[in-house]
Amino acid sequence: MTTPLPNPSLQVTADHSLKQVEAPVYAPGFGEVLLHVKATGVCGSDIHFWKTGRIGSLIVEGDCILGHEAAGVVLQCGEGVATLKPGDRIAVEPGVPCEQCWLCQEGRYNLCEDVQFAGVYPYHGTIQRYKVHPAKWCHKLPDNVTYSEGALLEPLSVVMHGIKSAGLSLGRGAVVCGAGPIGLIALAAARASGAHPIVITDLESRRLEFAKKFCPAVRTYQVDRNLDAEGNAKKIRKLYGDDEYVAPETVLECTGVESSVVTACFTCRRGGTVMVIGVGRSIMNNLPFMHLSLAEIDLKFINRYRDTWPAGLQCLGGGILDLKPLVTHTYPLEKALDALHTCSDLSNGSIKVQIIDEAENVL
Amino acid sequence: MTTPLPNPSLQVTADHSLKQVEAPVYAPGFGEVLLHVKATGVCGSDIHFWKTGRIGSLIVEGDCILGHEAAGVVLQCGEGVATLKPGDRIAVEPGVPCEQCWLCQEGRYNLCEDVQFAGVYPYHGTIQRYKVHPAKWCHKLPDNVTYSEGALLEPLSVVMHGIKSAGLSLGRGAVVCGAGPIGLIALAAARASGAHPIVITDLESRRLEFAKKFCPAVRTYQVDRNLDAEGNAKKIRKLYGDDEYVAPETVLECTGVESSVVTACFTCRRGGTVMVIGVGRSIMNNLPFMHLSLAEIDLKFINRYRDTWPAGLQCLGGGILDLKPLVTHTYPLEKALDALHTCSDLSNGSIKVQIIDEAENVL
Amino acid sequence: MTTPLPNPSLQVTADHSLKQVEAPVYAPGFGEVLLHVKATGVCGSDIHFWKTGRIGSLIVEGDCILGHEAAGVVLQCGEGVATLKPGDRIAVEPGVPCEQCWLCQEGRYNLCEDVQFAGVYPYHGTIQRYKVHPAKWCHKLPDNVTYSEGALLEPLSVVMHGIKSAGLSLGRGAVVCGAGPIGLIALAAARASGAHPIVITDLESRRLEFAKKFCPAVRTYQVDRNLDAEGNAKKIRKLYGDDEYVAPETVLECTGVESSVVTACFTCRRGGTVMVIGVGRSIMNNLPFMHLSLAEIDLKFINRYRDTWPAGLQCLGGGILDLKPLVTHTYPLEKALDALHTCSDLSNGSIKVQIIDEAENVL
Amino acid sequence: MTTPLPNPSLQVTADHSLKQVEAPVYAPGFGEVLLHVKATGVCGSDIHFWKTGRIGSLIVEGDCILGHEAAGVVLQCGEGVATLKPGDRIAVEPGVPCEQCWLCQEGRYNLCEDVQFAGVYPYHGTIQRYKVHPAKWCHKLPDNVTYSEGALLEPLSVVMHGIKSAGLSLGRGAVVCGAGPIGLIALAAARASGAHPIVITDLESRRLEFAKKFCPAVRTYQVDRNLDAEGNAKKIRKLYGDDEYVAPETVLECTGVESSVVTACFTCRRGGTVMVIGVGRSIMNNLPFMHLSLAEIDLKFINRYRDTWPAGLQCLGGGILDLKPLVTHTYPLEKALDALHTCSDLSNGSIKVQIIDEAENVL
Repeated sequence: MTTPLPNPSLQVTADHSLKQVEAPVYAPGFGEVLLHVKATGVCGSDIHFWKTGRIGSLIVEGDCILGHEAAGVVLQCGEGVATLKPGDRIAVEPGVPCEQCWLCQEGRYNLCEDVQFAGVYPYHGTIQRYKVHPAKWCHKLPDNVTYSEGALLEPLSVVMHGIKSAGLSLGRGAVVCGAGPIGLIALAAARASGAHPIVITDLESRRLEFAKKFCPAVRTYQVDRNLDAEGNAKKIRKLYGDDEYVAPETVLECTGVESSVVTACFTCRRGGTVMVIGVGRSIMNNLPFMHLSLAEIDLKFINRYRDTWPAGLQCLGGGILDLKPLVTHTYPLEKALDALHTCSDLSNGSIKVQIIDEAENVL
Repeated sequence: MTTPLPNPSLQVTADHSLKQVEAPVYAPGFGEVLLHVKATGVCGSDIHFWKTGRIGSLIVEGDCILGHEAAGVVLQCGEGVATLKPGDRIAVEPGVPCEQCWLCQEGRYNLCEDVQFAGVYPYHGTIQRYKVHPAKWCHKLPDNVTYSEGALLEPLSVVMHGIKSAGLSLGRGAVVCGAGPIGLIALAAARASGAHPIVITDLESRRLEFAKKFCPAVRTYQVDRNLDAEGNAKKIRKLYGDDEYVAPETVLECTGVESSVVTACFTCRRGGTVMVIGVGRSIMNNLPFMHLSLAEIDLKFINRYRDTWPAGLQCLGGGILDLKPLVTHTYPLEKALDALHTCSDLSNGSIKVQIIDEAENVL
Repeated sequence: MTTPLPNPSLQVTADHSLKQVEAPVYAPGFGEVLLHVKATGVCGSDIHFWKTGRIGSLIVEGDCILGHEAAGVVLQCGEGVATLKPGDRIAVEPGVPCEQCWLCQEGRYNLCEDVQFAGVYPYHGTIQRYKVHPAKWCHKLPDNVTYSEGALLEPLSVVMHGIKSAGLSLGRGAVVCGAGPIGLIALAAARASGAHPIVITDLESRRLEFAKKFCPAVRTYQVDRNLDAEGNAKKIRKLYGDDEYVAPETVLECTGVESSVVTACFTCRRGGTVMVIGVGRSIMNNLPFMHLSLAEIDLKFINRYRDTWPAGLQCLGGGILDLKPLVTHTYPLEKALDALHTCSDLSNGSIKVQIIDEAENVL
Repeated sequence: MTTPLPNPSLQVTADHSLKQVEAPVYAPGFGEVLLHVKATGVCGSDIHFWKTGRIGSLIVEGDCILGHEAAGVVLQCGEGVATLKPGDRIAVEPGVPCEQCWLCQEGRYNLCEDVQFAGVYPYHGTIQRYKVHPAKWCHKLPDNVTYSEGALLEPLSVVMHGIKSAGLSLGRGAVVCGAGPIGLIALAAARASGAHPIVITDLESRRLEFAKKFCPAVRTYQVDRNLDAEGNAKKIRKLYGDDEYVAPETVLECTGVESSVVTACFTCRRGGTVMVIGVGRSIMNNLPFMHLSLAEIDLKFINRYRDTWPAGLQCLGGGILDLKPLVTHTYPLEKALDALHTCSDLSNGSIKVQIIDEAENVL
């Protein structure tokens, strides 16, 4: 397809490098739209694909455009598209399930084994100007939600799916482990769900300071490397005071780090839930099974999200959540490589790095 | 027991009148405390006992001190009280269950058939200065929670129990039927739980204006007496826009009025829940069963609350909920009769009327 | 399409009569199969369409072939059919949802507002020899499940969906109201789920005797027309003995009759669930709301079923359920009219009437 | 207290040995009854206390009478006992919670941190003739339930609590890992709940043969030591055929062995639940977290049971479950030591070993 502007893209390669190259532009097929991608957030998984070439069984076997946290504007509609028209501002739901299997039929489309996920080899992602995507998986943005916020719906979706499964309730304590982008969104969402008190933990004091500014009602705990999991858990629990009723019934584990998961198990109150949101190593050791049995704790896991964009849009458009402070760095599309380097550098205090394309006259 | 001050009380009588009389003061027994009741809110059920002499099978067969929404300070502890001491500021949980039956054992103590409920004949209530109550059912107030707020924990508990059973979630629509005290607390609690959009309905525009000031994000709908339930429901649904995802999955019915319950059934989205919080007539007619079946709606009911004070206290102390604006009128204990008259007069715009006793040197 | 045999069908007409006429045979389109319908059960709703011309908003506005409880054999596959081949024995799931709306996407396809349901005008049903149906909504029968049993999967699905929503558990009491086909299947399914004790109620002693033979462990209660709902409920509860733990936590209401629904509300134990499976009048009166609130009972409703055929097949093939005794009368396709008359005649002791077509060389 | 017969008991000592000694007999206090213990089952935990001196934080610090799976007859009632009388046949619920803490109040008394559990140091157990126990925690046996069956209610309770938490449903697949006493009871209970197909796994073919005789509908899988967890899981899944709908949504892990837990994680279908019933090592390694996340599997844990005796009694008395075949060996009280040796010897094919005391004229 011919377009008036070039289509720069950021690709990861099979040999663990990144390249910025011009990518082809496709015409939208049946049920698809051609988008101008206006904003893409960089995710830890993008860095992971770049640095290690894989996440679990997902392996980068060839060039693949990265990016899956995206929002943009509809440029052109393929045949059979009734719900969108050119000019519509939308957020991208990046996973396209098969809609045929029993999991799709039961509504658990996030578990579909044939999902085509943008930015995961061999499916190209959104760090490019022109992207074709099924209209069904594009969600219209309200006027008061920016493209940058629209791109945040993807990590917000992870959190919302986790919270829906774990359960939070008004005036009941919660813990968020990890003050990175997912942890901070989890903090905001937990606060917006009425959980209280909330403690957020991290190894880095700088991140905890950011969390405190972002959500002043939160209590912070800097993980002590000299203590074991039980020791850290004991100190976290003290931040809830003496009333056991108030102890955290839900722990949202957002680091994917083994010591944090184990600490979460010891921090959760009897009968509560540890929700493993962070994904890290394939195998984990040192799980305190006897403690989990005695305390009757549920250990829950999620795979991405389902049915979260409409509710997420209500949160952003309705003033339930304000995630804008999380975007600490932005880069134009042409400097996407810098965005990934910024995101992978742990020393610069970046939380969410986004790539913004403000090009005009794109069609 | 001899006390330095008199113990004025407000009593309802078997012949449907109210009287302000001096009541005896008792010494706290085993496990009990003697309280100075500092604040009691007037509830619609107090008015109901006064005007009709009964609520369902609960019948006023003799003089009974009214009042069950209360907070106060501990004056004296009976034997065996380890959790409280004189001077402790507390909120009263008014229902004292038997703790022996299977319902108590399963934790559903609100369903105990032998509950002794303050302010329901023959159990005297809190519209008096000196009240004995079991220490176990007194909940300590944080320093930043006033007695007036402490007394609001009782109606808040009704709402929290209803929301816990019905379920609300971030960015999902909800409706509150009725902008009286319970409806307004339900509105605040729904907002604090992240529900959005929220519509509140009432027959009176003045109440809806109050609701809008109390929670500016809410949308209001004045029920049209010229429309039937389906007609009103249709207009309420329009306030959610065209996106069916956003339609209300939960309707919190807080009026106990039949036409409102039926409207709630038609307003709720397919697969949603109508939570009947308002209690009114023993029997209801005109329930749209065919519609409820086709739409697969759950109709849920609650009896008061259980395990809600600790979480409610967190909400008030932690800045999750601010219910202070709901207290529109206060009276000193000696003018308790005026408080009930104000509450029963629908023309004065009162929301929550409280009786406050600021007497000093009470022991 | 030309077929070697005629295609007799039973149709309901807009003016409330039945006719047996030859129907056209269609070729299977994309994703569809042509079936030889071997068995169709007659359902109360078929009788209802015939006698009254409507069920709620579903109106018979023209000729329509009845029948939706069916099983058969695949004769021919249309393009794009990969999961079935000629000769496959299958059960028909009669409702074909749109698979586009948010309800389908969330997996609640039974609530799809655009469902095309076989046997509901204008969608022709299964009381004919040759029927085209989407392959996706045909479920393969294990060798040890007959066509007659296959046709019972539809009413079994109603029951399974209701039980899944209501919840039953090992050694907990249940009540089934109504000993018609749905009630008897509910009885079998409740027993197979481990509920105990189970009481089944009906007005007719003959039906209760049938129930007792069908499931000897059940206790029966003949509803006393001279007692009101509370009176009958009290006598039903006595059948559970004195242990309140054992009182029915679930009541499966399978009659759709108002007095039975009200009795169900009074029979259910505190904190339990009344599952309204039977569909009858659009509006119901006399609902004991005060009692439902005090007893904190959930009133649940279902619309047909979802995701039930695979599990239902396991039940029939795996010896979990034996529903064969419920088929009391069978008729050949050519005598389908007699089948409907038998089903509508309450004096003959019929439970499930089926139309069986044993024609050979159908293609 | 003076009794006509001696009170032989089996005690474990702090130095890991067993002794059969005469124990004192106590008079029942307020709310207590004196029992003649007629049957006690030997549990793996009894062996564990004997051989290792501890289970997690529970340490044998002094002599302690073993035994907690018991039934007997009431000999004498202490003051304040209204629910029992001498001659009543009862099953013992061995854990006596504090009934004061928030967990007891919420109905989760099994999580009470101050539970006094019979047979766990320092609380004497039931392998003695005369035992005092609170009346509240004695459950009356129906006439058709033997003492031996009554003693099986304790392990049945573990299983029922696990199944209640994990969820099983009609016609949905389940796996039971381990064909020991708990696994076999889980098998029976899963079958009685309507789960199908059910596969039971074990390392020992003899145990699987026992399982097959006990429940002929079960499919068996002998764990292959030469395969890793994924390899064994793959072969277990094959026993469910090709229909993914039928794959096990629930895995009841009853071994407490790490390799079995890991296999369970790989065996469970996407979106399912692994219920960890077996308790073994304090710490477990090799948990496949990435897989659990991708498959969105819940890992659930239980601590004993709550509210299970009444339902368990209904199961045994109502013909829902027949557990009698599991009692393979019985010993008189005087030979209790032999019972423990038989139970600890893996070569004799014992499943459940019970100690039966048929002494007469005990009071």
